[in-house]
Amino acid sequence: MTDLFLVLIISVIAIIVAIILAVTIKRIKVTNAKMSEIAGYIAKGAMAYLKRQYKVLIIFLIAVVLVLGFIPGLGWNMSLAFIIGAILSILAGFFGMRSAVSANVRTAEAATKGLGPAFKVAFSGGAVMGLLVVGLGALGICIVSFIFNDINVLTGFSFGASSIALFCRVGGGIYTKAADVGADLVGKVEAGIPEDDPRNPAVIADNVGDNVGDIAGMGADLFESYVGCIVSALLIAATSMYATNSTLVGGFASGGASLVMLLVAAGIAASIIGVIIVRCIRAKRVQMTLTMGTYIAAAIFIVLAVVLSLTCTGDIMPFLGVLCGIIAGLLIGKFTEIYTSADYNAVKKIAKASQTGPATTILSGYATGLQSTLLPIITLVVAILLAFFACGEFGVVLAALGMLATVGIVISVDAYGPVADNAGGIAEMSGAGEEVRKITDHLDSVGNTTAALGKGFSIGSAALTALALFTAYSQAVNLSSDDLVLTSVKVIAGIFIGGVITFLFASLTINSVSKAANKMIEEVRRQFKASPGLMAGTEKPDYERCVDISTRAAIKEMILPGVLAIVVPIIVGVIPVLGPPALAGLLAGALIVGVLQAISMANSGGAWDNAKKYIEEGHEGGKGSEPHKAAVIGDTVGDPFKDTAGPSMNILIKLMSIVALVFIPLFLH
Amino acid sequence: MTDLFLVLIISVIAIIVAIILAVTIKRIKVTNAKMSEIAGYIAKGAMAYLKRQYKVLIIFLIAVVLVLGFIPGLGWNMSLAFIIGAILSILAGFFGMRSAVSANVRTAEAATKGLGPAFKVAFSGGAVMGLLVVGLGALGICIVSFIFNDINVLTGFSFGASSIALFCRVGGGIYTKAADVGADLVGKVEAGIPEDDPRNPAVIADNVGDNVGDIAGMGADLFESYVGCIVSALLIAATSMYATNSTLVGGFASGGASLVMLLVAAGIAASIIGVIIVRCIRAKRVQMTLTMGTYIAAAIFIVLAVVLSLTCTGDIMPFLGVLCGIIAGLLIGKFTEIYTSADYNAVKKIAKASQTGPATTILSGYATGLQSTLLPIITLVVAILLAFFACGEFGVVLAALGMLATVGIVISVDAYGPVADNAGGIAEMSGAGEEVRKITDHLDSVGNTTAALGKGFSIGSAALTALALFTAYSQAVNLSSDDLVLTSVKVIAGIFIGGVITFLFASLTINSVSKAANKMIEEVRRQFKASPGLMAGTEKPDYERCVDISTRAAIKEMILPGVLAIVVPIIVGVIPVLGPPALAGLLAGALIVGVLQAISMANSGGAWDNAKKYIEEGHEGGKGSEPHKAAVIGDTVGDPFKDTAGPSMNILIKLMSIVALVFIPLFLH
Repeated sequence: MTDLFLVLIISVIAIIVAIILAVTIKRIKVTNAKMSEIAGYIAKGAMAYLKRQYKVLIIFLIAVVLVLGFIPGLGWNMSLAFIIGAILSILAGFFGMRSAVSANVRTAEAATKGLGPAFKVAFSGGAVMGLLVVGLGALGICIVSFIFNDINVLTGFSFGASSIALFCRVGGGIYTKAADVGADLVGKVEAGIPEDDPRNPAVIADNVGDNVGDIAGMGADLFESYVGCIVSALLIAATSMYATNSTLVGGFASGGASLVMLLVAAGIAASIIGVIIVRCIRAKRVQMTLTMGTYIAAAIFIVLAVVLSLTCTGDIMPFLGVLCGIIAGLLIGKFTEIYTSADYNAVKKIAKASQTGPATTILSGYATGLQSTLLPIITLVVAILLAFFACGEFGVVLAALGMLATVGIVISVDAYGPVADNAGGIAEMSGAGEEVRKITDHLDSVGNTTAALGKGFSIGSAALTALALFTAYSQAVNLSSDDLVLTSVKVIAGIFIGGVITFLFASLTINSVSKAANKMIEEVRRQFKASPGLMAGTEKPDYERCVDISTRAAIKEMILPGVLAIVVPIIVGVIPVLGPPALAGLLAGALIVGVLQAISMANSGGAWDNAKKYIEEGHEGGKGSEPHKAAVIGDTVGDPFKDTAGPSMNILIKLMSIVALVFIPLFLH
Repeated sequence: MTDLFLVLIISVIAIIVAIILAVTIKRIKVTNAKMSEIAGYIAKGAMAYLKRQYKVLIIFLIAVVLVLGFIPGLGWNMSLAFIIGAILSILAGFFGMRSAVSANVRTAEAATKGLGPAFKVAFSGGAVMGLLVVGLGALGICIVSFIFNDINVLTGFSFGASSIALFCRVGGGIYTKAADVGADLVGKVEAGIPEDDPRNPAVIADNVGDNVGDIAGMGADLFESYVGCIVSALLIAATSMYATNSTLVGGFASGGASLVMLLVAAGIAASIIGVIIVRCIRAKRVQMTLTMGTYIAAAIFIVLAVVLSLTCTGDIMPFLGVLCGIIAGLLIGKFTEIYTSADYNAVKKIAKASQTGPATTILSGYATGLQSTLLPIITLVVAILLAFFACGEFGVVLAALGMLATVGIVISVDAYGPVADNAGGIAEMSGAGEEVRKITDHLDSVGNTTAALGKGFSIGSAALTALALFTAYSQAVNLSSDDLVLTSVKVIAGIFIGGVITFLFASLTINSVSKAANKMIEEVRRQFKASPGLMAGTEKPDYERCVDISTRAAIKEMILPGVLAIVVPIIVGVIPVLGPPALAGLLAGALIVGVLQAISMANSGGAWDNAKKYIEEGHEGGKGSEPHKAAVIGDTVGDPFKDTAGPSMNILIKLMSIVALVFIPLFLH
């Protein structure tokens, strides 16, 4: 049990550090009354959304608990594990977001004292989420292991985490983009007022959206990847060549499983150190501080991984698997940057294409997204092959673990971005001085750069985790090679179904954003019309109605895609003509199509966004020119691509895999 | 040999009927000098393009012939078969297009005499292509079978047809959309002159594009499907349960192969009868005549198929396989209509979304395309499963054959559309009277409706053919189930590579259109600027320069995607770490992603196009309104989707499969 206890202790430390950071943030007093008022609106909107979301989720959770409980072969243990997974995911999202919301305004407040203090608050806000995700994730695995002492029940835990993640990601994605598009199209384009102007009725909803989409959604996403990856690693370790080669006293019946848990502990430790380094080093150059923290954490983890690989298995090969994942993660992050940063050609080309109007902007950005899949996919393929040759299926899942082990620091850096962004919004809305704005703008721009790494990371880790879960499913379902052969008509049928689900899913989420955005547009137009004093600033807009529209739409529209992702794999697995072989095909089809869609949508969306910003910096005609208008259209098209449909793909492929894994007893009965 | 001779005779009859139709068209005198002049430009431009294309293709063909000849296990027989396939594909494209070009102007001319004569000419123009494709395709298979008496050499024939098809489809697609976008954006939008106005310098290039893209490109595409489908059917028949159950004297060593050849003969006969019916029945309602011809041909084929199934195999099961294909083809055509015709909700929704600007138009159309994949994919899955349960892999390939057997009449009806469209253009440009325009407009609008069937058809048949070729590859490469199991890391790597190639391919073709269109836009702008008399009609535009731009761009840009499609499968097959199992994965990955992309791109493009037309009919603000401008942007984005990238996918997946099949000896040595 040494290894489990070690993970338990370190995960509790991570949670304690998170709590300390959260309390430190809370202690900062907000002296600016205007800032405090606006932050109050945002906090109220965010909490209102979460409350409503939880109400719906409770019904869903109860339904699943009952279903799991009554299915022979699954039972109430599985139900309980499921509930623990769901609740921990909710807790991570809830407290992570709460602390981000409280960090937003305090970052703006701290900016009056300088860059250093402001950066510290913003980063702490993100770090609470980062450390909670890894702390609660690892803690949950320990708890479930202790209670049930049954490795299969862990899949129920992972299922709980995944289903919450999907609803949070889809709901958050719809919320944030509906508000964003509504605020932009009517406020910026029609009324001609700047971004984050308090006269815009949708401005609070927009800021709430950043929190529920970029922070809570992203946190839930990576919580799921983290948990799913660890669980599949434990499952695969049990059948790997390291299964009996235990050289360390372990809670699991294998050196491989011990290695997995110790790597988790090492990753959390490295992340905590990384967070402390970033917090404690003087922030002269913000970007460097963040990068340094990430790299130091990675370096510590690598050193520990070598030692652990040798001590647990007496073999360096597992470490090579881990290393493949780490390098692949960094490379995919770099490629994401190449295709979405204005420092490179792809974005400049899109800006140039805006010269001939919106149609060429769209085509250019869309083609960029498609093209941007090439290098990440080749990286994944090479990493998978190398890791496999190092130590088989276990190597592949170790690559996923390598990518995700230091996710604590990665989320911290990634969540820092939206906190800084929101701080800028609050500073703007509260009419803070030039100096304050300059600091928040700088923090924000650094956040945009670091976001690329996080995005590439979450896609890469999702792909590897889904692959690991798929492998775990295939092993657990115990089919012969003849059943699972690629040429089997059932497998082919499954591949087609898996592929088409991701397309359908993308279509549903994009349409949901459009529908919700349309309602928001109408409401904002109505308010501007009904209250002529709005523009003059003599009347106050009705923020709550806009918040309410986004909330209702997000909650309503998240249900169908969420249920679909859970129900379709079960149906395919149960129907006799299809069954487990077709379900394996479904997972493979969804994996390939989902990953391609996720990368291309995220990158085309990111590229359009930055092409617009690049033009706003004065290129190709600058702000207000015809090319700028074309670029704004590109950006609006890209919004649901990069923040709703794209990231939802990550969760879809993981969730369907975990559903397949959990419900195996149902298919085999 | 009875069966082969029968096919030979019927294919020769099809060719003779095609020649008679072509001669009948040619005999019609063009009395209108203005029409004759414009038609002369179009014919000259089309021939100039083909000549240049053939020059490049000859280099490519020689290279492949040498490569095939010197590879041990392939050899010069394969080379010769390859060349025969390539040449017959070129001949079908060349003569089919030539006769379409001569039918264009004569349809316009005949329109002065009324709807009936005009319809007859237009349909005859399309029918030449339809009958040449099936006639030359089947003839080629007979010739190659007679010469080499070796079923494997047939794959070389299919490879020849496929590679020509890819270049024609990609080149034609780039040509037509570069010209179209250039003509529209500068002529219609900037200069404000109507479609098909002779003052527009790009107008001739635009009309040439319809011929090289919609007619030659589509013909080559279906020639490839047809040949690929028959060849894979013969290969799979040899290993099916009907392999020895021969009840008819056949040229092949199986009743299954006899059945395949006799079904081909039956399909050609049914198509000829269908063509004759359409030609000879009085055309009061054009739409009904076309539909009737298609359905009568299908009915004749079905009856013959029942008889053949029973006589060749003593079993009704093969017929059920065929029937699955026929029904699936019709259903997919219907679904295409539902998502792309203004009679249904999807298109109306896009038109409505145009109210809130181009961004929502794009999002709505894009989501429609994604969603439109669901029903066709489910149809394919059900058809594949049913056909498989009827008689195994042979059933699946029979379904493909069922869909493609009557392709002669389908192409005739489909190619009729662009002929009617071009006739309308010529009538417009030559300043023909109101009456003539009304007739050509009517013919054109019928063509738009029938096009949906053709598009759905070519995607559905491509999917089934690629699947059949994939099955043939998997059988021929003779790997164990353990090698080809879906969970094999090599197979997974291959699936990823196959998926990403289709994304890369789509990106390349879209970018090519953008690049070429930009050059065209610049040239048209330059001409309007340099020659002020152009707008007044006192100066003549330099049509040839525009034709030249499209030609050069198309030829240059078709090379990279074409070479990629051939080289990548070979590389994957040869690399030891990947090899034949990864290549199987590649084919499966490309199949699923390619089919999804093909359907969604074709349908979103079609839906945008018709949403624009729907608005032009007076809905949502009508022509010239803001929604109309938004819809025009949607249409422009959709152009390369539906006419370049989308249809190229069909060929890509087939070509890569046939490459894998042909080069097996290289991988196993």
